[in-house]
Amino acid sequence: MSRNFSVAVAGATGAVGVEMLKVLEERKFPVSSVKLLASSRSVGKKMMFRGEQLTVEELKPDSFNGVDIALFSAGASVSKEFRKSVVDSGAVMIDNSSAFRMEKDVPLVVPEVNPEDVKNHHGVIANPNCSTIIMLVAVAPLHKAFRLKRMVASTYQAASGAGAKGMNELVVQTGQILRNEQIAPEVFAHRIAFNLIPHIDVFNENGYTKEELKMLNETRKMLHDDSIMVSCTCVRVPVMRAHSESLNLEFACPVTPDDVRRVLSGAPGVKLVDEPSAKRYPMPVDASGQWDVLAGRIRQDISRNDGCGIDMFVSGDQVLKGAALNAVQIAELVALM
Amino acid sequence: MSRNFSVAVAGATGAVGVEMLKVLEERKFPVSSVKLLASSRSVGKKMMFRGEQLTVEELKPDSFNGVDIALFSAGASVSKEFRKSVVDSGAVMIDNSSAFRMEKDVPLVVPEVNPEDVKNHHGVIANPNCSTIIMLVAVAPLHKAFRLKRMVASTYQAASGAGAKGMNELVVQTGQILRNEQIAPEVFAHRIAFNLIPHIDVFNENGYTKEELKMLNETRKMLHDDSIMVSCTCVRVPVMRAHSESLNLEFACPVTPDDVRRVLSGAPGVKLVDEPSAKRYPMPVDASGQWDVLAGRIRQDISRNDGCGIDMFVSGDQVLKGAALNAVQIAELVALM
Repeated sequence: MSRNFSVAVAGATGAVGVEMLKVLEERKFPVSSVKLLASSRSVGKKMMFRGEQLTVEELKPDSFNGVDIALFSAGASVSKEFRKSVVDSGAVMIDNSSAFRMEKDVPLVVPEVNPEDVKNHHGVIANPNCSTIIMLVAVAPLHKAFRLKRMVASTYQAASGAGAKGMNELVVQTGQILRNEQIAPEVFAHRIAFNLIPHIDVFNENGYTKEELKMLNETRKMLHDDSIMVSCTCVRVPVMRAHSESLNLEFACPVTPDDVRRVLSGAPGVKLVDEPSAKRYPMPVDASGQWDVLAGRIRQDISRNDGCGIDMFVSGDQVLKGAALNAVQIAELVALM
Repeated sequence: MSRNFSVAVAGATGAVGVEMLKVLEERKFPVSSVKLLASSRSVGKKMMFRGEQLTVEELKPDSFNGVDIALFSAGASVSKEFRKSVVDSGAVMIDNSSAFRMEKDVPLVVPEVNPEDVKNHHGVIANPNCSTIIMLVAVAPLHKAFRLKRMVASTYQAASGAGAKGMNELVVQTGQILRNEQIAPEVFAHRIAFNLIPHIDVFNENGYTKEELKMLNETRKMLHDDSIMVSCTCVRVPVMRAHSESLNLEFACPVTPDDVRRVLSGAPGVKLVDEPSAKRYPMPVDASGQWDVLAGRIRQDISRNDGCGIDMFVSGDQVLKGAALNAVQIAELVALM
């Protein structure tokens, strides 16, 4: 008989927390009990799980007694504050924030990419950056087949990357613009309705944002290859909850679009949507609500003569595969250990 | 005493036509008379020019008697239909469509990039593709300084690229989505509200769209350099009227971000907006209504070890610099001949 697990969700009322609960249910995760944790202002809120009403409790250091797996999606500072309590209680922390991702002893895992890394955890496993997850689900199988040398990525990132309040600001502000009303950006640095903001997370001295550098550093960590070169430009777009990415890939050997389609058609977590003549290609409205990352617009890079370049466009649900789903998939690996 | 010119605007009631008229007025183009031409269904419409009410006339083969300069923005088939009438009448046709751009005897001109090419016209001068114009205003001065070898571009193209009806569809459909109503895409291949469509113009056999190939072919023609390699991914975004582009540039020699800023700060038609620490970078809301192309997010490409790479983000008004303004600037060059 297989074991059931006591699961805690910290940040249960946020956009990702809500989806974590849904995904645990939809994937029939072997749960013995679920504890919903959040800050004091959400205490007492009711949420449904498997037809049962659960009440949100306050996240406190002693919240983790008897907990096996703690899914965290409450921001980096909360994760840092509670790490010791979780680990000391004997639970495994699966953390959606950027707090511990680059720590040597913390595995950073996309289950389709590097599931074996889960084994090396010391109480904490990190969920990667959402754009990195969506990119690597499609790129890692190509790296394994053809060895990726260099990647130039431009992202089209949804409002959900800033949580429920980001999606709300997009909706409210768009209505205000349509009615010619004054707007007052709060979540995003500038107006997001009918606009783009080429600025996600803070700027580094080298002119890249932290978000852009995560896509380099987390890629190298998960693919265990520090020779991979990556340059990203991360852009917020007025889209609700799926991130898209335009990827220019350079491999160590010549690769044809058919090679890429063959590899991706058998890759877990990837759905090939690549029939331009039928107007079928990845789009955020189609990726929203899906577990798979959509990959398409696959073509030979005509800016190279050596046949080693491929262009590709991907879309993936930021809240699901970019966060909640990936965290639950990590929990599934932990459950199998 | 300088000469005044009789100007005709074909497609006067379209998004670009309306702006052509405004730009002629704002730039004090030496006009002796203006003729507004459109299809029969717009005949009789009134439009203002320099405080004077003008009436739209039907575009016919004999419309160009006495006309010096004919600005065309009525689609490729209309341009093809009337080319002979315009040229036979002795007028110079400045055409905003893609009909003649790659013809050997038709100069393709961005006045900040290759003004000297205007001289070689045989009655027709072509206005380049909007994304190509916006890109080259910022990239051509860098090519002149450092020689561009290869460019990877991902675009974020506004609804205005599909004309007034494209902008209207974005506004109407966005309201419908916010009110949870049914939508029926007509102008764009799919829903554009809160979505992205990685498909502009038709697909070529090699998997690129015509729009993406224009950015390669028109760049080579205008820079007179067929060795430049370009790979583009063109994406429609829910933005009203300014195109943005994420550009990864490879030069023939090492180039620093300061080198790029120095060149661009003196480049005509470019406005450097590159102070990330003050949250200043190019955005479509800021580029809209401006004549200049905004350039920023300038940084050394960290995916190269040779120092020859630069990343940059640009935004430019698609209706103005991408179409109407560039056409009037070409007319200014013709007026000086």
